[in-house]
Amino acid sequence: MEYKLLSGINQPQDLKRLPLDSLPALAEEIRSFLVHNVTRTGGHLASNLGVVELTLALHYVFDSPEDRLIWDTGHQAYVHKLLTGRRERFDRLRQLDGMSGFPRSDESEHDVYGTGHASTSIAAALGFSNASDEHWTIAIIGDGALTGGLALTGLNNATLARRRFLVVLNDNGMSIDANVGTMARYLSAIKTKSSPRALNRALRQAITRVFGASSAPRNLYERVKDFIFYFFMPRSSGGVVFEELGFSYFGPYDGHNVVSLVKLFRALKRIEDEPLLTHVITHKGCGFAPAEKSPTKWHGVSAGTPLGADDDTLVRPDEDERRSVKSYTEIFVDTLIEAVPRYPDLVAVTAAMPSGTGLLKFGKAYPDRFYDVGISEEFAVTFACGLAKGGKRPVCAIYSTFLQRAFDQLIHDVGIQRIPVVFALDRGGLVGADGETHQGVFDLSYLRMIPNFTVMAPKDEEELRRMLITALEHRDGPTAIRYPRGGAVGVPLSSDIATIPIGSWELLREGTKAAVLAVGVMVPEALKAAELLSERGISVAVVNARFIRPMDENMLYALAKRVPLIVTAEENIAKGGFGSGVVELLSQRLGSAMPRVRIVALPDRFIEHGSQKELRARCGVDAESIVSCITDCLSQVEPKFKIV
Amino acid sequence: MEYKLLSGINQPQDLKRLPLDSLPALAEEIRSFLVHNVTRTGGHLASNLGVVELTLALHYVFDSPEDRLIWDTGHQAYVHKLLTGRRERFDRLRQLDGMSGFPRSDESEHDVYGTGHASTSIAAALGFSNASDEHWTIAIIGDGALTGGLALTGLNNATLARRRFLVVLNDNGMSIDANVGTMARYLSAIKTKSSPRALNRALRQAITRVFGASSAPRNLYERVKDFIFYFFMPRSSGGVVFEELGFSYFGPYDGHNVVSLVKLFRALKRIEDEPLLTHVITHKGCGFAPAEKSPTKWHGVSAGTPLGADDDTLVRPDEDERRSVKSYTEIFVDTLIEAVPRYPDLVAVTAAMPSGTGLLKFGKAYPDRFYDVGISEEFAVTFACGLAKGGKRPVCAIYSTFLQRAFDQLIHDVGIQRIPVVFALDRGGLVGADGETHQGVFDLSYLRMIPNFTVMAPKDEEELRRMLITALEHRDGPTAIRYPRGGAVGVPLSSDIATIPIGSWELLREGTKAAVLAVGVMVPEALKAAELLSERGISVAVVNARFIRPMDENMLYALAKRVPLIVTAEENIAKGGFGSGVVELLSQRLGSAMPRVRIVALPDRFIEHGSQKELRARCGVDAESIVSCITDCLSQVEPKFKIV
Repeated sequence: MEYKLLSGINQPQDLKRLPLDSLPALAEEIRSFLVHNVTRTGGHLASNLGVVELTLALHYVFDSPEDRLIWDTGHQAYVHKLLTGRRERFDRLRQLDGMSGFPRSDESEHDVYGTGHASTSIAAALGFSNASDEHWTIAIIGDGALTGGLALTGLNNATLARRRFLVVLNDNGMSIDANVGTMARYLSAIKTKSSPRALNRALRQAITRVFGASSAPRNLYERVKDFIFYFFMPRSSGGVVFEELGFSYFGPYDGHNVVSLVKLFRALKRIEDEPLLTHVITHKGCGFAPAEKSPTKWHGVSAGTPLGADDDTLVRPDEDERRSVKSYTEIFVDTLIEAVPRYPDLVAVTAAMPSGTGLLKFGKAYPDRFYDVGISEEFAVTFACGLAKGGKRPVCAIYSTFLQRAFDQLIHDVGIQRIPVVFALDRGGLVGADGETHQGVFDLSYLRMIPNFTVMAPKDEEELRRMLITALEHRDGPTAIRYPRGGAVGVPLSSDIATIPIGSWELLREGTKAAVLAVGVMVPEALKAAELLSERGISVAVVNARFIRPMDENMLYALAKRVPLIVTAEENIAKGGFGSGVVELLSQRLGSAMPRVRIVALPDRFIEHGSQKELRARCGVDAESIVSCITDCLSQVEPKFKIV
Repeated sequence: MEYKLLSGINQPQDLKRLPLDSLPALAEEIRSFLVHNVTRTGGHLASNLGVVELTLALHYVFDSPEDRLIWDTGHQAYVHKLLTGRRERFDRLRQLDGMSGFPRSDESEHDVYGTGHASTSIAAALGFSNASDEHWTIAIIGDGALTGGLALTGLNNATLARRRFLVVLNDNGMSIDANVGTMARYLSAIKTKSSPRALNRALRQAITRVFGASSAPRNLYERVKDFIFYFFMPRSSGGVVFEELGFSYFGPYDGHNVVSLVKLFRALKRIEDEPLLTHVITHKGCGFAPAEKSPTKWHGVSAGTPLGADDDTLVRPDEDERRSVKSYTEIFVDTLIEAVPRYPDLVAVTAAMPSGTGLLKFGKAYPDRFYDVGISEEFAVTFACGLAKGGKRPVCAIYSTFLQRAFDQLIHDVGIQRIPVVFALDRGGLVGADGETHQGVFDLSYLRMIPNFTVMAPKDEEELRRMLITALEHRDGPTAIRYPRGGAVGVPLSSDIATIPIGSWELLREGTKAAVLAVGVMVPEALKAAELLSERGISVAVVNARFIRPMDENMLYALAKRVPLIVTAEENIAKGGFGSGVVELLSQRLGSAMPRVRIVALPDRFIEHGSQKELRARCGVDAESIVSCITDCLSQVEPKFKIV
């Protein structure tokens, strides 16, 4: 396909040179570009198709990077990237060393603030606004992200806004899944009600605002008034919540009429003296029929998705390939469903990720036992605490990276009160193409430090099943199970699920020269390494260190006395992680009798995007790394200092 | 003083037996009891004086513990404790092994949910409500706590409420300091406006509600209507935000008329089918003139406060005694004020703790450079990121325990983008009487794991000054300075503040048998230990390990080669902390040449309340612990395994 208009746009100035009436055609080109490129490379699709016109209008009216556009969550910034000199880089979107799928300050001066997790934009924008208000600060936030506590406190701090401050509420009625909460219900009510009296009130307010705010000549006032009154009708009576919270509310408007949006932003740009919130209605997947039909499934797509893929064959973008085995996510939810008859008080909680965590299926099977609380992990955890203290048996499924949001709740609510909530941490370890903001590589460190917690990681899907039942049986405190993104190992599943003694490791292979203590996905890597070393005549033991907390101290000390070298292996940062715990224990207990210990773990930096396999190789957390670590040590060569 | 009524109340049933008209007299007794006891033991005073009538009315009408009272933040639960069988325990309020200053499930069945940090109550209450709705679930939350993201997401999830759900908004217009944000402005507007039309609307709504909700006989409806219409006027037009968010709003009411409050709760108790929010106006310090006049100063008081203490001589409850030397807090803020001319872009951010962090003084000196964002640490951190990316030099002062709330923002916003925000973590380490929810004992662990961070802890106030300037000079990434609660050491302060080379430790004392690497407050303890050991002929080196991240690896390896034993000392949990980092490094770099290492740190449990000194002795983090650790090791006795 030829991109007649788009191919001439290398910077926002190029866009501004186009006549207004050519923007709809450009929008179509962009839509076509996105569909063709993103289905090829993989990436977020539906959300970007929804903001084509909105992004065009913002860049057409405002002057990035002096005017600062802050994209909340950031997976909807593709069009922004396209208009700011990164068209050619879409070939390697989300690939190792290619362009990130999120805004990144080190990628472009137009990405003034890096995002990835939801709900940060208003807070960051208020910061920028206070740093300087000569130019505009604009936060573009979805209605999903608006359910987060950080976004709501952003609204509550509207008093902090200086001049030229605009929040664009990109309302598509969804998070990744359907949106929840009263704010969602409220926005939906705004969209549907519009009374003449309310209209009059809006008119009066608008007049006051425009006349009060501008110091431009009278005829300009009239033009502005014209824009507001005639071009952007109807206004509804909605927005009172935003008004009460200190914003001047404008909306809702059709987010797919680019010409109207340009006029809207031109009008708003005249109102410099009050914090503005404009409410724009968009449709995820707009202009691409399959995604319009199933925006959740087409939220993101994997590389090489056929344009005609039907919903059932679609693969999520965070799955690298179609798998013949089930994912850990699927095993988790199937086991949870299976467990309901045995645990009549079982309930499940997700924070806006019913699809991603698999709980959608659980919620369909048991709607009364399922809670989606919106993008608010803090709320999810404290809510689960209330459920548990009230007698329920809550399982709280949250991605490893997002549970960082509830760290204090894990300490202050769960840990101190020793509440038996079961945490299912999906996407633990390297997650791949979503990159640094989404890697689940801190969890072993941040969970291991919290008293009263039991922390596990399964070596395969059968063990995940056993751990889930073990956790449900454990009523003396909280438990966390951390498992990776993507396909499981493919081992057979037992029908009768046995529990695992808390704190017990599993010796998988005997050996004399060294012992590898491996966590989760590193177990198969360790076995592979032992096999490779065995071929070279080096006998290495392998332990499935399935409990990170408490550790199997008996097995650890016994091994430490038997072998001269212990290697720990985990897909977590080295600092404070599993290996750190092992050296803590050994150094305290064995003193000068401590054997050598090597920690194979992730380096002390944020890990970029790329496939999981590429990243494992680059970061040195795979079978080859274990092999070279052991051979280096045994040959008495001090290995190069890589970690910590 | 004699407590004629109060002395007969050992359980809520005893209260219920009293005639309604005796409650005002009981309130006076309670107030007198609180003033006399709390000034003697120390504790939170003003907030408890503000909720005497509210607590009486709740316990008079509802049936705790079947009806579940959840006290947000929890420092206002003294009256609740007094009415639920703990009167005698006020003698040892907040003392070691005495009664906690916060609700604790292990203290009483009436404390159904433990709190300490703000804003958790609505989320927890929604959990209880979903666990069972046979009885009432009641969250009592202040207007300060309502500014927190977790509370706001609680409001946003009102849809989750089941039957018999009530939020009591205890509006005293304050956090510990004056309240901020538009929600505060909004609540204040509600209090002052009341139009006849709004009144009619309220009446209509009330009728609908009562008639729709109750299945009681008609004459009961009339009685309920009577209560609502005649006893509780005026109602205002306010509360539309709460109504839009799904609550049925009632208020505002006078929170010090106990008879009216009883009637209010009796009326509300009839409305079982919709989530209720009632807005009660109270006054911090009510009934005790000095506290009414200065509620912030009397928010909490230290032990042995004279009733006639004037504001300037009052000592905060988290200071054990009057000090002859300045506190770290004071040194911090004085240095910050001093730094302004040198750093024209300097700004400071607090999350609702201007007094506690000392920033009040900074804000008075430089109002344009000072931000109080309410009880929202997440917002504070992300807001500071925006300020920094926009060109400002933000210093974000947050208590160690509260910064746990912003852990994800430290990783996702600050760390990944390497934004040079300066974090001042006051109350690092053991904080004393506030107990487990407030101990700042995780920070070295949770900060040490985050790439790009520099983490420091000063040995005295002069070093704090130097660290602050060092942090302001360091523009290549974020810095955190962690310092303790209470009085500093009393060393002289230099007028020209020199920076400290990043990552450099300081060898304070040479020695041959062992080296103690001490962090912050443990430095003087280590010096004392070295002196004691020297008297026994044991030569011990002492290092001021002022950088926790990065460490002074050169000094560490040099020491490790010189002495056979290294002891680390920190007021932080052992897991993942400073000592953990030292064994990580030594084990990876030195292999089998690694010396023995002992970690002196806090045990793997939550630390109770008590004075700092008592807790240090009990937890084994003082000079004596270092001495016995070293003598045990050197005498080749394997010391008892205490930590990790």
